[in-house]
Amino acid sequence: MSVLVVGTTALDSIKTPKAENPRLLGGSASHAAVAASFFAPVKLVGIVGKDFPKRYIELYRRHKIDLAGLQIAEGKTFHWSGEYEVNMNNRRTLTTELGVIETFTPHLPEAYKSSPYVLLANIAPALQHHVLDQMRKPKFVVADTMDLWLNIALPDLLRLVKRVDAFVLNDSEARMLTDDDNTVRSLKKIHKLGPKYVIIKKGEHGSILSGPNGFFVAPAFPLDKVVDPTGAGDSFVGGLLGYLASKGGDVEKHLRRAIIHGSATASFCCEGFGLSRTTKTVAKDIAERVTALEKMIKF
Amino acid sequence: MSVLVVGTTALDSIKTPKAENPRLLGGSASHAAVAASFFAPVKLVGIVGKDFPKRYIELYRRHKIDLAGLQIAEGKTFHWSGEYEVNMNNRRTLTTELGVIETFTPHLPEAYKSSPYVLLANIAPALQHHVLDQMRKPKFVVADTMDLWLNIALPDLLRLVKRVDAFVLNDSEARMLTDDDNTVRSLKKIHKLGPKYVIIKKGEHGSILSGPNGFFVAPAFPLDKVVDPTGAGDSFVGGLLGYLASKGGDVEKHLRRAIIHGSATASFCCEGFGLSRTTKTVAKDIAERVTALEKMIKF
Repeated sequence: MSVLVVGTTALDSIKTPKAENPRLLGGSASHAAVAASFFAPVKLVGIVGKDFPKRYIELYRRHKIDLAGLQIAEGKTFHWSGEYEVNMNNRRTLTTELGVIETFTPHLPEAYKSSPYVLLANIAPALQHHVLDQMRKPKFVVADTMDLWLNIALPDLLRLVKRVDAFVLNDSEARMLTDDDNTVRSLKKIHKLGPKYVIIKKGEHGSILSGPNGFFVAPAFPLDKVVDPTGAGDSFVGGLLGYLASKGGDVEKHLRRAIIHGSATASFCCEGFGLSRTTKTVAKDIAERVTALEKMIKF
Repeated sequence: MSVLVVGTTALDSIKTPKAENPRLLGGSASHAAVAASFFAPVKLVGIVGKDFPKRYIELYRRHKIDLAGLQIAEGKTFHWSGEYEVNMNNRRTLTTELGVIETFTPHLPEAYKSSPYVLLANIAPALQHHVLDQMRKPKFVVADTMDLWLNIALPDLLRLVKRVDAFVLNDSEARMLTDDDNTVRSLKKIHKLGPKYVIIKKGEHGSILSGPNGFFVAPAFPLDKVVDPTGAGDSFVGGLLGYLASKGGDVEKHLRRAIIHGSATASFCCEGFGLSRTTKTVAKDIAERVTALEKMIKF
């Protein structure tokens, strides 16, 4: 079954202590869509400017991503630049140029509206709502977010959280949203906001799912080299939802294994700048890391 | 089979954002010995002053801890006082009064020297060496440490690490020791210092074991209330080695499950000041959290 992915389609300029990489393909939807594409057909919703390099369109196409919902508008593509600190865990935004995304109104092609799996990747909650408004009874909706929306669009976000099956956020965002340092209490507080499933991402420490069957504590794949973690969280949710779509049937039954597939997919994202390593990955590589993770947690 | 535990036997005064608790029973050996006692007979090596409260001796006795190796000397018991920050993850030492520990020379009773399982809990590496020198071919030796010894006794520590089967340290200590931010690379570098097994403790994020059979990524038990994490690392290694001693046989076969038992035991330590919650724990409570952890990681 197919996955609809909405989010940002961007150009990222990323500085790390070791290198500088201008105008990489980035954005939450790019990372999530490519990650999901290893498992299921993907329909992309986004907007880019006339400056968007043709080679990135070709990259999407190589991953068989349906681009009927990608608008190409007059103006500049959303451009984010950021810098990572030595330990690669903290990053700061240097510049954000919204470009065409500022006036973006996502219109879904007819064929998109019945996608059973919907990933509202990180973008303004108002746009996530707008996409959801156009969907016809999706089977499973996941929303991701970022600290920016907690700061400037909290009412929209809180309304959104009530409308989704699973809400994904990282540990610092969970602390911010719930004003609580304790992960277990945070999870409980977020459930009270609406979603049946809550997933807190903890970077190299893995993630934790809370749902009707209790907690699932998932490892991250241990990496000996983290080149650029930008997009790892988007790859995680993309891989997760792609896997769920590939299985169909009962979500509860497949969700834990889906999280491990998300984790494995995200590990490749971290090993190269932008999407450079992810796009060299094949389904077999991901399956191998899933098997390795399975061995690493067994006792 | 029995476990010999050497380490500090101390009085801890602990301040958290919510409370202040003076002169609790503390020290690495106290936490580790009580944790190990849930699984196997424990022989304690340590020193206290004449001021050491009788009720703490009785506490050890209730846990059937052999005190033949506990010296009671003229002078004051080692006293540590520290303060935790709001998130309970960072602590700072307020005062350290060494007292009788300053001139401590551990002499092992004859019956101790053939203990098959030896836990060199956190104490000066010179003293850990001194205990090891007196042992007759122990089956499995684990050493724990702290940042202080990396700073003031590194040569002693590096000599010690060559003599042990397993070396345990926390993530910030691993970074300090190897000058490397990456956990996987740190583990590799520490193996090169000698030990067959290396375990990096990551607090609420669990721990990671590296050994001949690769990595074991172990979860921490998710707690909705952390009252005082002092001694959690000591409880972890104590529970781990106690479990191994209770099983006997091939260490490799039981090590992963031993780590989970250490993790479960340490979770109780965090739920009360000093040893207050741990001493109210029974083996069945720990077994229940092990079962719960098993369910939480299954996929």
